[in-house]
Amino acid sequence: MKNSDTNKELKMLVGRAAAALIQDGMVCGLGTGSTAACMIEELGRRVREERLQIVGVPTSFQSRILCRKYGIPTRDIQDCAELDLAIDGADEVDPQLNLIKGGGAAHTREKIVAAMAKEFIVIVDQSKLVSRLNQSFPIPVEVVPEALRFVQDVIGRLGGECQLRMGLRKDGPVITDNGQFVLDVQFPPTADLREIDRVLHHTPGVVETGLFFDLARKVLVGYAASFEVKTLVK
Amino acid sequence: MKNSDTNKELKMLVGRAAAALIQDGMVCGLGTGSTAACMIEELGRRVREERLQIVGVPTSFQSRILCRKYGIPTRDIQDCAELDLAIDGADEVDPQLNLIKGGGAAHTREKIVAAMAKEFIVIVDQSKLVSRLNQSFPIPVEVVPEALRFVQDVIGRLGGECQLRMGLRKDGPVITDNGQFVLDVQFPPTADLREIDRVLHHTPGVVETGLFFDLARKVLVGYAASFEVKTLVK
Repeated sequence: MKNSDTNKELKMLVGRAAAALIQDGMVCGLGTGSTAACMIEELGRRVREERLQIVGVPTSFQSRILCRKYGIPTRDIQDCAELDLAIDGADEVDPQLNLIKGGGAAHTREKIVAAMAKEFIVIVDQSKLVSRLNQSFPIPVEVVPEALRFVQDVIGRLGGECQLRMGLRKDGPVITDNGQFVLDVQFPPTADLREIDRVLHHTPGVVETGLFFDLARKVLVGYAASFEVKTLVK
Repeated sequence: MKNSDTNKELKMLVGRAAAALIQDGMVCGLGTGSTAACMIEELGRRVREERLQIVGVPTSFQSRILCRKYGIPTRDIQDCAELDLAIDGADEVDPQLNLIKGGGAAHTREKIVAAMAKEFIVIVDQSKLVSRLNQSFPIPVEVVPEALRFVQDVIGRLGGECQLRMGLRKDGPVITDNGQFVLDVQFPPTADLREIDRVLHHTPGVVETGLFFDLARKVLVGYAASFEVKTLVK
C-alpha cells in the first residue's frame, strides 16, 4: 500500500470514529479539512443506510459542498440557538487540548461554531500534536484592514513577528469570508500565549485570533504507525 | 438669538477650543459629529491664516469630506505609525471619562484612532455627561453577521437586551464600513460594564464594542447656560 493510501485510510479511520459519535436528532457543527471530509463522507453513509436523522452546520463552503454531495441536511449558523456537538480539525493541539486553528482563514466562524456547541471534539492525525503551541505553526489573527499597521505594531510590542497572509490565485492579501485580512504571527518560544490572546482581544481592529483555549475537551488522534485512533480527554 | 443659533455658537466655541490644542507638525485623528465638524472648520482657518502645518487622519467619510472642504491635508490610518493627538465626540461621558461611542456605527475605526494616539481628547456638550454609562444610551456592538444569533444569546445571558440596528435609506440592517452588523444593547442599571466588555471581547463574532474605558484623559465640555467650555481632566 502506498503512503498516500495509508494516509487516506488513516483519515477514514479517524473520520469514522468521529462520525460514530453523532447521534440521532443532533444538530452538529461540521468542520473543514481532509479528516473532516472523511467524517462527512461516513456521516452521509449513516444518513443513507442507517436513516440517521441529523442536521449539519458547516463551518465552510468546503463542508457545505460535501454535505450536499453526501445528502446531509444543513442549517445556517444564524438559524441555530445551540449545537449539540461540533467536530473540527486543528493545526496544532497541545497537551491541555488547547489549539491553533485558522490555516484555512476560517477560524472566526470555526470559533463561533465551537463556542455554540455543547461539546466540541477535535479530529487530527498525530503530526498535529505539539508539546507547546506556536513553536512552529503561526497564530492566525483576523484583522480589519485599516487597523493593519496598528495591530502589527501592537504585536511587535508583544514580541511577535507577523506576516500578512498573501493570496494564491488572487493578487494581494487573502480576504476572509468576513472581508478582513489575516496576520500569521510567531511569538518567542516562552511567550505567555494566554496573556497575549487577552491583549489581542482587547486591541481594536482584531476580529478574532486562532488560539482556541479551553474549548476542546476531547481529541481523536490517528496514529499512522499503529493504525489506530486514540482519544485524548481533558 | 434663536436656540439653534445658540447651539451652533456653542459648538463653534468647543470646536475652537479643541482646534487650539493642535500644534504645528502634528498628525491628528479628526473625529465625527457636529462639534467635530466645527473643530475641523476652525482648523481649516488656522491652516489657511496661520499657516499651521498638520496632517489630519479622519475617522469617517464625513470628516474626510470636511478636511477636503477646508483644505486640511489628510493621511490614511494605514499609513500612520502613531498619532500625536486624536479629538472626537462621544455619545455618553461618565465621571471617570469613560465613554459610549458608536451612534454613527464607526466606533471600531474611532477606537483604533483613539488607541493609536498619544493623547485622546473628547469634545461634547453638557447633555452627554452622565453619572453612569448605559442608563439611557445603548452600547453599540459590532458583530459578524453569521454570529448574530450567538452573540444575541450571549448578551441575553449577560442580562442585556439588544436590538439589531436597522438602516434608514437602506432596507434591512445597517452595514458598517467593515461590512458587519450593529447590535444596540441595554444592560440592567447596576451591571458591571467592565466585566461585560471583557466577556464581549472574548466572544467570537464580536468585532468591537462602543465602550471606551481608560482611553480619554481630557474632555472639553460646552455649557449652554453659561456659554463656556470647561475641561475635565482625569
